[in-house]
Amino acid sequence: MLKSLQEIVGERVSSSLAERCCYSSDASQVSGYPDFVVRPANTGEVSRIMMLCNERDVPVVARGAGSGLAGGASPVSGGVVLDMSGMDRILEMDLENLQVIVEPGVVAEKLNWALEPHGFFFPPDPGSSSFCTIGGMISYNSSGMRSVKYGTTRSYVLDLEVVLADGRVIHTGSRNLKSAAGYDLTRLFVGSEGTLGIITRAGLKVAPLPKERRLVFASFESAEAAGQAVIAVFSQGITPSACEILDRTTLKVLRLVDPKLALPDDGDVILFEVDGSRDSTAEAAEQIEKVCRPMAITIRQASGREMEPIWAARRLVGAAISRLDPKKTRIYMGEDVGVPIKQIPALIKRVQQITASVGIPAMKYGHIGDGNLHVALFIDVNDPDQWDRLRTAADRIHRAALSLGGTVSSEHGIGLARAEYMAEQVGKESLNVMRAIKKSLDPRGILNPGKMGL
Amino acid sequence: MLKSLQEIVGERVSSSLAERCCYSSDASQVSGYPDFVVRPANTGEVSRIMMLCNERDVPVVARGAGSGLAGGASPVSGGVVLDMSGMDRILEMDLENLQVIVEPGVVAEKLNWALEPHGFFFPPDPGSSSFCTIGGMISYNSSGMRSVKYGTTRSYVLDLEVVLADGRVIHTGSRNLKSAAGYDLTRLFVGSEGTLGIITRAGLKVAPLPKERRLVFASFESAEAAGQAVIAVFSQGITPSACEILDRTTLKVLRLVDPKLALPDDGDVILFEVDGSRDSTAEAAEQIEKVCRPMAITIRQASGREMEPIWAARRLVGAAISRLDPKKTRIYMGEDVGVPIKQIPALIKRVQQITASVGIPAMKYGHIGDGNLHVALFIDVNDPDQWDRLRTAADRIHRAALSLGGTVSSEHGIGLARAEYMAEQVGKESLNVMRAIKKSLDPRGILNPGKMGL
Ligand SMILES: Cc1cc2nc3c(=O)[nH]c(=O)nc-3n(C[C@H](O)[C@H](O)[C@H](O)COP(=O)(O)OP(=O)(O)OC[C@H]3O[C@@H](n4cnc5c(N)ncnc54)[C@H](O)[C@@H]3O)c2cc1C
Ligand SMILES: Cc1cc2nc3c(=O)[nH]c(=O)nc-3n(C[C@H](O)[C@H](O)[C@H](O)COP(=O)(O)OP(=O)(O)OC[C@H]3O[C@@H](n4cnc5c(N)ncnc54)[C@H](O)[C@@H]3O)c2cc1C
Repeated sequence: MLKSLQEIVGERVSSSLAERCCYSSDASQVSGYPDFVVRPANTGEVSRIMMLCNERDVPVVARGAGSGLAGGASPVSGGVVLDMSGMDRILEMDLENLQVIVEPGVVAEKLNWALEPHGFFFPPDPGSSSFCTIGGMISYNSSGMRSVKYGTTRSYVLDLEVVLADGRVIHTGSRNLKSAAGYDLTRLFVGSEGTLGIITRAGLKVAPLPKERRLVFASFESAEAAGQAVIAVFSQGITPSACEILDRTTLKVLRLVDPKLALPDDGDVILFEVDGSRDSTAEAAEQIEKVCRPMAITIRQASGREMEPIWAARRLVGAAISRLDPKKTRIYMGEDVGVPIKQIPALIKRVQQITASVGIPAMKYGHIGDGNLHVALFIDVNDPDQWDRLRTAADRIHRAALSLGGTVSSEHGIGLARAEYMAEQVGKESLNVMRAIKKSLDPRGILNPGKMGL
Repeated sequence: MLKSLQEIVGERVSSSLAERCCYSSDASQVSGYPDFVVRPANTGEVSRIMMLCNERDVPVVARGAGSGLAGGASPVSGGVVLDMSGMDRILEMDLENLQVIVEPGVVAEKLNWALEPHGFFFPPDPGSSSFCTIGGMISYNSSGMRSVKYGTTRSYVLDLEVVLADGRVIHTGSRNLKSAAGYDLTRLFVGSEGTLGIITRAGLKVAPLPKERRLVFASFESAEAAGQAVIAVFSQGITPSACEILDRTTLKVLRLVDPKLALPDDGDVILFEVDGSRDSTAEAAEQIEKVCRPMAITIRQASGREMEPIWAARRLVGAAISRLDPKKTRIYMGEDVGVPIKQIPALIKRVQQITASVGIPAMKYGHIGDGNLHVALFIDVNDPDQWDRLRTAADRIHRAALSLGGTVSSEHGIGLARAEYMAEQVGKESLNVMRAIKKSLDPRGILNPGKMGL
């Protein structure tokens, strides 16, 4: 096998223990050793690799930056890891057509650096955008703070070049902004977590940069009350460009990092960002203030430079948690639940009860305008009892979301970490349909086996 | 068969010649007689009908309002037409969650009437919205003037209830605004033209109504020059809420209908609409004027009441064409091509050459901001020679779009009218993938056979 792979990619394959160890996991708890690490340089190589692996029934797991939080890129069945991060060219900036053509290894932030001077941006903005790849974002349908207005990665993919399990190369869409011709294969591959094909090129739609941003932030008696404020704002027909919750534990952590942080310290906080022209942002910010004032303890606005440290702190949250107790580590489990907006207060309440009852401290933050709550559980990883309690908490959090008509993952994906909930999440018959589709494209089941509950 | 169907739906089935004739075609040239017309009242009935037809290999064609322009709802292989227009209840207005739950037979405009008092709307706006159904719109991924800003139907479908070929009932999404859990079955069914399942319920996302709209309209030396202006506006990062072209033939027709129409009569016209807050629309309109002024002959703005007759005239265009010559009829063929924005001037030029060379008069209008050009060819339908030339023109227009990297359908769909172009449109291997998916969900091929080139 090694020899055959070398015939295709030369030196860019390895089976050394060190390399295999480096590629054994993503940013989740899911891991397994691959047999080979391969770094393809172009579509032709990917196609030949797939042909080879299909012939020999060797599992293939694509990997971008390995920043995923669900184990999607973890090679739990051995076989080949395809490291796509080397295919990282921006092939075309076709801004007259509002689009760019990229290889899958392009890092999201680098794409935005290239777009900014032209007045455009690629809107999906995961917290990981300074290192995650476009291929990974497409495969997880990633999103972030601004999806409440701009939508998820799905909304920005026009066309994909995909290598199928048997090495065939297909194109899924077109460079037209609008086309009604055949099944929407593009969006079938978006969110498919490497189980249907390897993405080797993407045509992405870009959007004009907004001229102005403005922030309204308000503190509330409780996280539940904060959730009520979100419902009130949306019911008024206001669409903020971001709508984030930071509960009081999260704020405490942030203040440990930056004691001068200009955020209220008297409750649980919601950040509403609005963007657009100068006047329209001022108007929308006023409206939000008006709706929230009767419910809030304190409320303030910020614009321009003033906003920067606040957003910087928000981005830091996930990593900052260790400040609360340096002996403890944040574990990404049960961290990405979501519910319909109306159920936000109920979800917050249930999560509070769960973490209190199992005695695991938790920080709650997230894209609450999408109904998405990130629950950060942290434990001493050397204590098996804390691990047990963590697992119990994560499982109950997932089930709480499901019982509220919600989702076990708003944006981080299913991978292996959440595979056990798929039947309940999508329904037994829908899961069967997904399996039938998987089988029709990958009959030997070599693409990322074991993932997504397929 | 009639008896078995009666056991399921009672009186709501017919095999009379009159009924069969009424259901033999949609608004296109494609037709064929069904054997039975069935009007199901609920999901359970649809499921039992599918089970029966699957068992007996009887084709099933779903039909909404039959306003489609590609023959999607035409029962070309006989069998059962499922008239879904009777399942027309708005089941839930869940505006706190920014969504509504509807049956597929709800007419688009009626949904908007129900939403308006609450300050919301369902953005996709085909010219047919006063009669077409949500089920038809989902199945064609319909759109209209405002998709340039708001996107197509695809962007507003959260969740579907679908009856599969064998009668199984599945749900495809969830009521969450954001979820990353499994394949995006929702968007696989959007645009699938009744070939994968029967949609019996839909959860739709709605949007807040904009506070203000404003129109900028400008005339140009040529339709190509008008196309250049569109490129210039988009390159500035402006996103109009509508961007329509009306060529001089179209304007002539409109003036025959309304001689007082406040549109320029000195060239080919582009209408740019912007929406949002009062100040932001004024600002965007100013910007558009500034970009277009050097290229335009005349340029003007309109707002409020002043805009109404202009939009009313625009909506009338398709039907108004007979004013030019009452003996002639507009035939919807080659009517929905689209290209990447940059190619708009080239497409316009090619269409002009084609219609001149075959000697068929044509009116050109459409959602040019999406790259979508509606070419209205009109002929004396009693003249076989004109029919021949019409077919030649339509074929050349489709091929011109393809050769410019465009699409044979931006929004009207493939059906049978454009099925012959599918292999060239999507590529042979992609078409094979579509066929494999179709087969995995409908192994006996009873759902809308012959459509979409599958
Ligand atoms: C600090 C931090 C913050 C984060 N914040 C967010 C957030 O706000 N929002 C959010 O959505 N996510 C977030 N994430 C999760 C993760 O970063 C994103 O999902 C990211 O998009 C994954 O990109 P990647 O390149 O690391 O993909 P990987 O983890 O390498 O892979 C992700 C999945 O895609 C598949 N894949 C990768 N490349 C290809 C390809 N070319 N073809 C086919 N399949 C492929 C893999 O097999 C795997 O299933 C965060 C992660 C971290 C560590
Ligand atoms: C004057 C006029 C103007 C138009 N303007 C536009 C426009 O601006 N933009 C645009 O996109 N289109 C336009 N159209 C085309 C057409 O009206 C739209 O595509 C419309 O959405 C079709 O809806 P319908 O209910 O008539 O569907 P039908 O024509 O009845 O069916 C359309 C397709 O959907 C399938 N289908 C219907 N219901 C279901 C269901 N419940 N489950 C599964 N499959 C189903 C049918 O089998 C068929 O393939 C126009 C048509 C006319 C006549």
